[in-house]
Amino acid sequence: MQWWKVTLLGVGLAALFGLGIIVGHFAIPKKDEPTSSPLQDLDQELLGTVMSQLDANRIQENLRWFKFDPAPFPTVNPGGTILFSARRSEENLTGEQGDPEVVQPYAAYKPRISGPCSSCPLMSSPIWTPKESQQLSPPTNPSRVQGELRTTWAQPEPDRVPTRLQQFLRLLCTSSRHHVLAGLALPQFPVTRGAPGLTSSLCLLSNLRGPVAPAAWQGALGCQYRLGPGFLDSGRFPPDSQVNVTVHNRVELRNSSNVLGVIRGAVEPDRYVLYGNHRDSWVHGAVDPSSGTAVLLEISRVLGTLVKKGKWRPRRSVVFASWGAEEFGLIGSTEFTEEFFTKLQERAVAYINVDIAVFIHVGATGRGLPGDPAQSVIFSAAKQVPAPENSALTVYDRWLRHSNRSSPAHGVIPSLGSLGSGSDYAAFLHFLGITSMDIAYTYDRSKTSARIYPTYHTAFDTFQYVERFLDPGFISHQAVARTAANALLRLSDSLLLPLNVSDYSETLRSFLQAAQDTLGPLLTQPGISLGPLVSAVGRFEQAAAALHQRIETLKNNPSDPLKVRMVNDQLMLLERAFLNPRAFPEKYYYSHVLWAPRTSSVPTFPGLANACEEASKTPHDPEAWAKVRKQLSIAVMAVEGAAATLEPVA
Amino acid sequence: MQWWKVTLLGVGLAALFGLGIIVGHFAIPKKDEPTSSPLQDLDQELLGTVMSQLDANRIQENLRWFKFDPAPFPTVNPGGTILFSARRSEENLTGEQGDPEVVQPYAAYKPRISGPCSSCPLMSSPIWTPKESQQLSPPTNPSRVQGELRTTWAQPEPDRVPTRLQQFLRLLCTSSRHHVLAGLALPQFPVTRGAPGLTSSLCLLSNLRGPVAPAAWQGALGCQYRLGPGFLDSGRFPPDSQVNVTVHNRVELRNSSNVLGVIRGAVEPDRYVLYGNHRDSWVHGAVDPSSGTAVLLEISRVLGTLVKKGKWRPRRSVVFASWGAEEFGLIGSTEFTEEFFTKLQERAVAYINVDIAVFIHVGATGRGLPGDPAQSVIFSAAKQVPAPENSALTVYDRWLRHSNRSSPAHGVIPSLGSLGSGSDYAAFLHFLGITSMDIAYTYDRSKTSARIYPTYHTAFDTFQYVERFLDPGFISHQAVARTAANALLRLSDSLLLPLNVSDYSETLRSFLQAAQDTLGPLLTQPGISLGPLVSAVGRFEQAAAALHQRIETLKNNPSDPLKVRMVNDQLMLLERAFLNPRAFPEKYYYSHVLWAPRTSSVPTFPGLANACEEASKTPHDPEAWAKVRKQLSIAVMAVEGAAATLEPVA
Repeated sequence: MQWWKVTLLGVGLAALFGLGIIVGHFAIPKKDEPTSSPLQDLDQELLGTVMSQLDANRIQENLRWFKFDPAPFPTVNPGGTILFSARRSEENLTGEQGDPEVVQPYAAYKPRISGPCSSCPLMSSPIWTPKESQQLSPPTNPSRVQGELRTTWAQPEPDRVPTRLQQFLRLLCTSSRHHVLAGLALPQFPVTRGAPGLTSSLCLLSNLRGPVAPAAWQGALGCQYRLGPGFLDSGRFPPDSQVNVTVHNRVELRNSSNVLGVIRGAVEPDRYVLYGNHRDSWVHGAVDPSSGTAVLLEISRVLGTLVKKGKWRPRRSVVFASWGAEEFGLIGSTEFTEEFFTKLQERAVAYINVDIAVFIHVGATGRGLPGDPAQSVIFSAAKQVPAPENSALTVYDRWLRHSNRSSPAHGVIPSLGSLGSGSDYAAFLHFLGITSMDIAYTYDRSKTSARIYPTYHTAFDTFQYVERFLDPGFISHQAVARTAANALLRLSDSLLLPLNVSDYSETLRSFLQAAQDTLGPLLTQPGISLGPLVSAVGRFEQAAAALHQRIETLKNNPSDPLKVRMVNDQLMLLERAFLNPRAFPEKYYYSHVLWAPRTSSVPTFPGLANACEEASKTPHDPEAWAKVRKQLSIAVMAVEGAAATLEPVA
Repeated sequence: MQWWKVTLLGVGLAALFGLGIIVGHFAIPKKDEPTSSPLQDLDQELLGTVMSQLDANRIQENLRWFKFDPAPFPTVNPGGTILFSARRSEENLTGEQGDPEVVQPYAAYKPRISGPCSSCPLMSSPIWTPKESQQLSPPTNPSRVQGELRTTWAQPEPDRVPTRLQQFLRLLCTSSRHHVLAGLALPQFPVTRGAPGLTSSLCLLSNLRGPVAPAAWQGALGCQYRLGPGFLDSGRFPPDSQVNVTVHNRVELRNSSNVLGVIRGAVEPDRYVLYGNHRDSWVHGAVDPSSGTAVLLEISRVLGTLVKKGKWRPRRSVVFASWGAEEFGLIGSTEFTEEFFTKLQERAVAYINVDIAVFIHVGATGRGLPGDPAQSVIFSAAKQVPAPENSALTVYDRWLRHSNRSSPAHGVIPSLGSLGSGSDYAAFLHFLGITSMDIAYTYDRSKTSARIYPTYHTAFDTFQYVERFLDPGFISHQAVARTAANALLRLSDSLLLPLNVSDYSETLRSFLQAAQDTLGPLLTQPGISLGPLVSAVGRFEQAAAALHQRIETLKNNPSDPLKVRMVNDQLMLLERAFLNPRAFPEKYYYSHVLWAPRTSSVPTFPGLANACEEASKTPHDPEAWAKVRKQLSIAVMAVEGAAATLEPVA
């Protein structure tokens, strides 16, 4: 039975890591503590103190200390007549892969598959199609919906099993231990030899025939990715070879915990800046997630010590979170956003995520929303942190060299990756409309398209791997800690929230431009005008610019704490104004009108883009155009509402 | 063509009444005006000044001044072989009913009906069934959805027309000039003789056969209401007589305007107290809505004068609103809540509605949510206003005698009618979760079950009717003005919002009790436990009581404006915490988990009650029980979220 278990929520349970103890101890509210002045601004000296105290060695020791917990595990047993067999587990190269407690590669939530229907031609399809997403059952119990949404996938209609089998690569790509590594294979580590997924997928993928896959699906395995079905005539396998997958999973309920620590705010305790990372890992998980957790612990140690010594208390409350069950579908953080929905919606200023802190030791990037008001916070922080490998440069300088874009307002600036649903920020951004960011030290985009580090989700993701190869000296971890702590303090301590609302003007203008250029002609026939959107975006731009002016004036003479609070409320609630829980009723967790999933390639409001894509397929269906009108209306309402949020209050 | 028009949004257009001018003039922000102290509380002296300045004569003159605008109008032409014909218009008894500009009785949004399908047996059914509500098409364009929802009714599937005809009484009851008056026929006015609806329905209803209608449907026409179909054997008509209705309506688009006036708040301009009434009327509309508008104008005159003289400016912003197109489905106010959704959601403290100000001159009541935190505001206001007919009593005393209930916390208190969708408060409460109240001088419930005054929606609703019969001397209007202005000032000027959150504890406890007593046994079989609801309500009660304590402490030493603001945010957002836009996806405008429409007779959470009612009909359908679980979960989440809103913030 042990071999067939789905280890739902398993790995992280007992590993509480002392986070709760440390933060809880340091953050116990001190009675009769002197309250900070309601007009106190961010203290640059304190910022410097915190940055200097963040210690690479301590981060290293944090990481060394982490152990993963034993958990029952399932396995995948290929069967049938075999031309090529995928490895069933990692080769035991460093001793750690042979530990009997290592969870063998498996696909969480996958239905059990065996017998005659388990063979079919190989096809490649590494992402969900919208149609398939729609076929997921709607949630019936909101408080448990995350689990249900995810497990629904484990219970497809019986007649869908062969279809799913055709998507063998997807099965691997989306499995909970990602076997297919589209990322970079580092020469200094023999992962290409030892990892089961990479060798399997390389062997299979390089022999696949059919149309060439879209550019976005192409990876770094050194061959052209094709869609299938079947294999190349001249390849290793007969062209009509079938792929046989057997899955022996079974459903099992497991507990998982979120661990929280709060530093109560001195002036505005009802405003929350959240900082989190998950704690569960597939195997050793030294990089994913423990590199981020080591950074989180170090930041909480430094800030906690300052609080304990009475030297500092943030203006706003700071909440540290160690989430459970991220690997199984962001379950811990999503449950948290459901449980505390009301408070978070009313009071959360921002969410900072540091999951995989360091992908590679030379490079730098933050991740957030390109053109989101939080962008300026990350940039300000990155400008104050020396680059680990060259202290003449800052993290910002490095980032700017490695990955940049041109902004009409700011010129050339670092480019941020967008926030999808890859880590625990997802529910904060998409479900709650909370300004979010994700910070990591990662690849030089001018040199590689790598998306993930080579030992990701394998039994090779160990402390030794980090110490020897990924970040010797942990100086990149330290740079990430400094950047994240700097951003955290800016958000928690600045008198006026450091969110640059005009950055959204740029985003909205680019969305509008794309809609006009690409969708405009399509919309002529049914007589749909983008006029209301044009005027809404114009109104937003004016409102943002005017608010910017008012903030500058207020900064020079911040005499009234209530006036500061009123402006901060406008800034905090801007992201929330783009939320419309009625916008995408088929996507329970996606309410953000700007950042909901977009299947269309047109970089504009996702609801509008997707509806136009559908309508262009059935141009004679009035229902399809009604949906376009509805989505246009939703976009206009969101932008108008956001503008109203920024305009003078009375 | 004139005879067939549907006068959509017609009556109110040109009648702007000077409201905008008066309020706009008085409320122009004065630069360099001294800002009130951020810790200034409600000024009782000012409250007295305002109350004394509200002038019955001016209200009378306001009302005298109102004229309704000419509008094209449709008519109803009964046809076929006739045993009895309904009057097609009012008898011209006072001269005003014969004005050629009087809109003849008609049913707005009704489909055109004529020909063979227009006859059928008479049935009585004065309210919508849930099934029919569900058959309304979902809205496709949120910004215009109100119109669509309403007009959908005007475009039923062709095969539904006979069904609708069977509901002749409903057709009349829900028509836009309500012909069937279930209310009291006052002896001093010859409405029973002159009004077409009353004579028609009396004649038809008193002859109807079939089962006796439910108690809630019984009215004051002096006969037992029966459901039909067909007529009594011994009655005026042969038992199988059919009723013939012909409707000649056609769709026509009309413009309508909301008129707004704002008095900017001195300390917290980003907190809004709204006060509104509609302006459109069916005919002369002296009572509905102009009695309320006359009161609104007088309040805005008194407050505007104080602002103009520099003697007062409210702590929070006050917004006066004169809505258009209420009679056609609350369109003006609903469009307003859609257009300003974001700002209102973030910043609105409360909405006060005074529509029909005076139903009858001896009596008193407020309307709000029984057990809602706003109840205490209305009570406090009513205690400070002398009863118009006996100054030894207050409005509160009168109310307490006329209609009361027993409250566990407060003993015997006045009973509030509940807020459904009868006037413009609906969207504020149900769509936006804004604390709402409706104030009127109305019937002595110990003596009558009358729900409406006799000239309601007829051409007899004239100034002379109000002056001679309804409120000679306008002293009841004055009492309503004083009560409403008092409540307005309490909400706009109190340092701490005067909302008593513990009153919701009582409501939740009673909801829980009803669920346990009535639904508990039903839920045993599918194994659904009310335990989570029990603990959520307990948590709410504790949180409310603790907040009450903290508020008392803060009141004694309100040293920090930010602390006051934080508590006020908790109070303001409590009602919002009960909002769940995903709770009732089939009811676009209903998101309030406590006050959404309830078809079940069990006085508990409407979603839970309705789902249980359905499940009890199909106890073997697991889907039905899944819906019960979902609704229970929604109720628990709402109560937990509301408790979290009230609990200490960090």
